[in-house]
Amino acid sequence: MDVEQFRKAGYAAIDQICDYYSSIEQRDVKSLVKPGYLLDQLSTTPPTKGEDFPAIAADFQRLVMPGITHWQHPKFFAYFPSTVTFESILGDMYSSAVSNPGFNWACSPACTELEQVVMEWMVTVLGLDDVFRTSSGKGGGIIGTSASDMCLTAAIAARERALRVLARDHHQVNGTATPTEGPTDVPYSVRSENTKRLVMYGSTQTHSIGVKTALLLGLTFRTLPVKSADGYALRGDLLKAAIEEDIKKGFVPFFVIGTVGTTSSGAVDYIGDIGEVVHQYPTMFLHIDAAWAGMAWALPEQREALRLAEVNKYGDSVCTNAHKWGLVGFDCSLFFVRDRRDLTEALDVTPTYLRTKEADAGAVIDYRNWQLALGRRFRSVKLWFVMRGYGVEGLQAHLRNGISLCSDLVSEVAKDAKFEIVAPPRLGLLCFRLLKDGASASELDKLNVELHTRLAERPDVHLTQTILKSEDRGEIFCIRFAIGALRTTKQDVEEVWDEVVKESDRLVLEGNQVTN
Amino acid sequence: MDVEQFRKAGYAAIDQICDYYSSIEQRDVKSLVKPGYLLDQLSTTPPTKGEDFPAIAADFQRLVMPGITHWQHPKFFAYFPSTVTFESILGDMYSSAVSNPGFNWACSPACTELEQVVMEWMVTVLGLDDVFRTSSGKGGGIIGTSASDMCLTAAIAARERALRVLARDHHQVNGTATPTEGPTDVPYSVRSENTKRLVMYGSTQTHSIGVKTALLLGLTFRTLPVKSADGYALRGDLLKAAIEEDIKKGFVPFFVIGTVGTTSSGAVDYIGDIGEVVHQYPTMFLHIDAAWAGMAWALPEQREALRLAEVNKYGDSVCTNAHKWGLVGFDCSLFFVRDRRDLTEALDVTPTYLRTKEADAGAVIDYRNWQLALGRRFRSVKLWFVMRGYGVEGLQAHLRNGISLCSDLVSEVAKDAKFEIVAPPRLGLLCFRLLKDGASASELDKLNVELHTRLAERPDVHLTQTILKSEDRGEIFCIRFAIGALRTTKQDVEEVWDEVVKESDRLVLEGNQVTN
Repeated sequence: MDVEQFRKAGYAAIDQICDYYSSIEQRDVKSLVKPGYLLDQLSTTPPTKGEDFPAIAADFQRLVMPGITHWQHPKFFAYFPSTVTFESILGDMYSSAVSNPGFNWACSPACTELEQVVMEWMVTVLGLDDVFRTSSGKGGGIIGTSASDMCLTAAIAARERALRVLARDHHQVNGTATPTEGPTDVPYSVRSENTKRLVMYGSTQTHSIGVKTALLLGLTFRTLPVKSADGYALRGDLLKAAIEEDIKKGFVPFFVIGTVGTTSSGAVDYIGDIGEVVHQYPTMFLHIDAAWAGMAWALPEQREALRLAEVNKYGDSVCTNAHKWGLVGFDCSLFFVRDRRDLTEALDVTPTYLRTKEADAGAVIDYRNWQLALGRRFRSVKLWFVMRGYGVEGLQAHLRNGISLCSDLVSEVAKDAKFEIVAPPRLGLLCFRLLKDGASASELDKLNVELHTRLAERPDVHLTQTILKSEDRGEIFCIRFAIGALRTTKQDVEEVWDEVVKESDRLVLEGNQVTN
Repeated sequence: MDVEQFRKAGYAAIDQICDYYSSIEQRDVKSLVKPGYLLDQLSTTPPTKGEDFPAIAADFQRLVMPGITHWQHPKFFAYFPSTVTFESILGDMYSSAVSNPGFNWACSPACTELEQVVMEWMVTVLGLDDVFRTSSGKGGGIIGTSASDMCLTAAIAARERALRVLARDHHQVNGTATPTEGPTDVPYSVRSENTKRLVMYGSTQTHSIGVKTALLLGLTFRTLPVKSADGYALRGDLLKAAIEEDIKKGFVPFFVIGTVGTTSSGAVDYIGDIGEVVHQYPTMFLHIDAAWAGMAWALPEQREALRLAEVNKYGDSVCTNAHKWGLVGFDCSLFFVRDRRDLTEALDVTPTYLRTKEADAGAVIDYRNWQLALGRRFRSVKLWFVMRGYGVEGLQAHLRNGISLCSDLVSEVAKDAKFEIVAPPRLGLLCFRLLKDGASASELDKLNVELHTRLAERPDVHLTQTILKSEDRGEIFCIRFAIGALRTTKQDVEEVWDEVVKESDRLVLEGNQVTN
């Protein structure tokens, strides 16, 4: 494809994107294609000769689009919102035009420095403590791929920090000087004796990225219970008791995930109490997973409920995804650390072919030493475009709109006695279930599984499910209504809720008929 | 920004990309901005109000572009090529327009299925064994972010496989039934006793991603020496001796990285011999890192030299980056495994809110269970666009062009007695150094460091350095000339080489004047 062919194909692509967003509400929100729908239509053999682009673009529309679920649809209420904006799409265009692997500052200085600037902005936008600014000389921020990757990164940093603490103890006891054994300074004997003793903590409401992180690192994850009466939030006293119990058994507590806005219900753990506990143990590290809710720290009126002051006081690392509710297309995970040496002392490996005079002089940041992978995309440009295009006030208006729509829905649901709001609604998220007179807990679960199944079979409704588990109420199957897409209006929410009510009424009616 | 504003901004972005590529050869290949150049020009405060896009786009050109090193420049010969094509840029546009976090098939079925199709194509394109096809029901392919991420993924899969082998031994010895303890089926005692004993292997020429993988997992990496006489390739007998030695000491060998095309010099390890060794140890796993050179498996005439048959016979996992020499913009790392259960048994965690009826029925792939992170971008579309736009023959022509240009350069350098070709040239990569009569090894190193430093100060030349280390020749500092950008011509190579010759002549002349 030459430049003029690209210009034509590019204009056409822009037009298609315009068409898509001009009429997105006329589509079904959810693709109901069957497994294998596309596998069955595409050749298993790669083309020998190149084809003209219009034919390829036409196939995208004809074959790929039917298998797309529209996360930007105003009636997308599943999982969490995953917003993208025109500014973000443009950012991706500019970024991919100057594609480079970005592992060092020297790969393209603008990539690193723009990331430093926008992450500095985000500290301000979110109201994070100044220590999380890279300009503080102590902490810093980096854009990563996903909250799961960031949790893994934090856990590795935490593990190494804990092992360094244990190594210092080891040398004090043995009267030996701390040796230098590469970036981690941990003697093999300390590592091999202690790694197996390391324990991570989270609650039953912590996202599965916690358990997965432990799995990836081959470490133990201890899941602590929560109470419905506490709004499904993890309490500090429970953590303290678990840690003490584990220490008595010879384990070494090293990592706890405090969640601000759990995936199931939006619960906010008692970060202050948890932080107080964490501070009592020098091997402990507190990672704040605010993947979804953290963007709402941009709203001063939400900061107290989202425990921002406690996060600022106690969080060793903080993650929130701009690619969820934050108007930036996936991926754009914002990750901040209180002490960037926690990252570099765990992650820095520099062979000759990656050395540069600027890094040798300590004059620049090579972000590869703050992350797991070597290469990295130029993601800061889309965040920069979004923040400049929307301004802080534009982002705030978008967030407030979602919260307000949810608040209206909550009022509506609260008025209807046939539904239960199962957990305290949070920001744009509501967990509800259908009730039925005289039904047992397991009958209610069955009823709601059936309700969810029926809704899931419809292309015009997209809600996802969860099981809320607590000590005081057991396991409750419920349906999540997650608001936050850019184009969602009050009417969209009402129309989908009407469908939920209708399906519920039909279900109850059928059940009564069977019973009678 | 509304749809019509986006249309205008989108057309303008396309025009700017067209301008960029129409005149890229008139720019300097390398940005020589000083550290802080952009930090000094941008406000540290985020904008309160949104701005019009033309002002933002103008700032991109004015502020960001001067800090971009042009990896698509025809005179880019540093690191490895990182090609992007118009087809790939279009792919990113279509992908970001339907942005979604892609963790499950159900997120947007087209994303998973298109990835299955193009990875099936790439098995054919690269000549990989049928077992690496997802359709084989045994192995499979997935697009990842980078060769480093894929190496980490492979090592985790390998660790869990090794621990499962040890767990089976443990149960046989103890006469206990294999318990089910989550996806890994490894009792805590087996894990805690054996993890510290696990050893990874690579050579001094293995990319630093090997050492970094060990660092991330807290495991031991043993670096084996190579010989210049072996073309800097790792031999099987050396691996065998190291393994035996380690087993005697009580260690458990579990992972070896065999490199096809090392970063320093393009060496191809003796994969057949290494594979034979690996097969003798049930806990061992062979990961093939062909990050750069693997794309050249698309050329039948290169397959023997790149040991494809041995890779097909012995490799447990194989990685090559389409985003290096393969015309697809970063990131697009192709990762294939012989047995996908190695991935799922190490990586599958499925909470209620991620369950779908299609996955429960085993009818679809949820790629999150094949990778570390949860979310994933819709990367298959750019690979699909590139393979359809170029066809296999177009990709082959691009690769052959790079090889041919390098071959011409090698002839040129070989004729000039003042240069030494330090390692066997491979594909598009040449390692050379300047010689000087009567100079000692350390004087030659100094001379070449100085030559590289002078070249590095020029915006029109971009070559990177390495140190080649071998048992028979010690450490040799040399300069890499890596060809592979899309627009590179014979003239580009010659012009840059002329500058290298001129700088070398000046350097030698100055040295002689000082000496005299």
